[in-house]
Amino acid sequence: MKENRVPEVTIRRLSTYLRYLKELEERGETVVSSAQLAKACGLNAAQVRKDLAYFGEFGIRGVGYYVKDLYEHLKKILGLNREWRLAVIGIGNLGTALLNFRDFLKENYKIVAAFDKYPEKVIGRVAEQMGRPVEVLHIDRLKEVAKERKIDIAILSVPPSEAQKVADLVVEANIRGILNFTPVQLKVPKGIIVKNAYFTTVLDNLVYYLQFRRR
Amino acid sequence: MKENRVPEVTIRRLSTYLRYLKELEERGETVVSSAQLAKACGLNAAQVRKDLAYFGEFGIRGVGYYVKDLYEHLKKILGLNREWRLAVIGIGNLGTALLNFRDFLKENYKIVAAFDKYPEKVIGRVAEQMGRPVEVLHIDRLKEVAKERKIDIAILSVPPSEAQKVADLVVEANIRGILNFTPVQLKVPKGIIVKNAYFTTVLDNLVYYLQFRRR
Repeated sequence: MKENRVPEVTIRRLSTYLRYLKELEERGETVVSSAQLAKACGLNAAQVRKDLAYFGEFGIRGVGYYVKDLYEHLKKILGLNREWRLAVIGIGNLGTALLNFRDFLKENYKIVAAFDKYPEKVIGRVAEQMGRPVEVLHIDRLKEVAKERKIDIAILSVPPSEAQKVADLVVEANIRGILNFTPVQLKVPKGIIVKNAYFTTVLDNLVYYLQFRRR
Repeated sequence: MKENRVPEVTIRRLSTYLRYLKELEERGETVVSSAQLAKACGLNAAQVRKDLAYFGEFGIRGVGYYVKDLYEHLKKILGLNREWRLAVIGIGNLGTALLNFRDFLKENYKIVAAFDKYPEKVIGRVAEQMGRPVEVLHIDRLKEVAKERKIDIAILSVPPSEAQKVADLVVEANIRGILNFTPVQLKVPKGIIVKNAYFTTVLDNLVYYLQFRRR
């Protein structure tokens, strides 16, 4: 399977299918039709079939898809059939929320470290918000700990003014993926993957369009 | 100013400029060059000038931009010169994090209500995580409270299987904007604006590309 064949929007939809298939599996459903999958994800059945056809023939005519099979297939396609080890860098309010965010702990994501520039300053608040003490390491230890704990992905929730500097440290620590919760467009060498997840920008964007449609 | 003239990516960048200008203002800086603004946001100066030129001539040749003026201008363009009233719907782990997320409280966003299907179930955990009790209302009261408290935007952090149903209630309550933290593609009538902010999909997407580049 080549990585470039598949549009990014299809990959995003596969995640959505995956989450829904998990729900179905937990409810004990064994078979799902493309129409049902489409409806749950707000798409049409042809789109679902087209998305899945990129990766081979999963469906059985007149039946649909076997929930467990399709779930396992999609996990494999998405690379979620192995563990991905995350570190949260920048333990402010958002960083703490992300440490605490249980969705990350599903689907083989595991948070294995937390870093901050001032660990001694944040540790009390974190313990209070999370209801338990959490180890927060000094950012200076990133490279050493990344190697030791095999960190795959850095979740960046530092202030914007620190973002590029910290991204450089991440790259230096041989971490290949960055989930960027800062508004900064990071510059990284080829081979490092950055995805942006700063949702205040999304909210601003919503408001921009909303202001033209006041009641 | 027409809403359709301006590409969405420019609007996103304006938010980034805005956040950086705020930082500058707080540091007491009065003037910023397009080069400096570009560097802080990971862009080039020509791009910054082009983005700002959509909205008129703010810059002064050889000087750059007055921080305070540009900040106020951008706030106005983005519609952030007035208060936007938010409600968080679905007070699970993510909903609680969002209630607790102080970035939303900057730039004239105000969370005025929290809703859940089982308020009595979540209220204890929320109080514990937030370190203080928070009023969580039953979702049945959405329409009444939306009117009373003038809710502009619903932040949706319900389970995927509930997402469309709750979006329908939001529309019925005359709330015009939805920030969607579920993976579901919501169907809404014309005139309602939905923006998607489900970041586990973004993380999945990162991993998809990362799996081809293992060390």
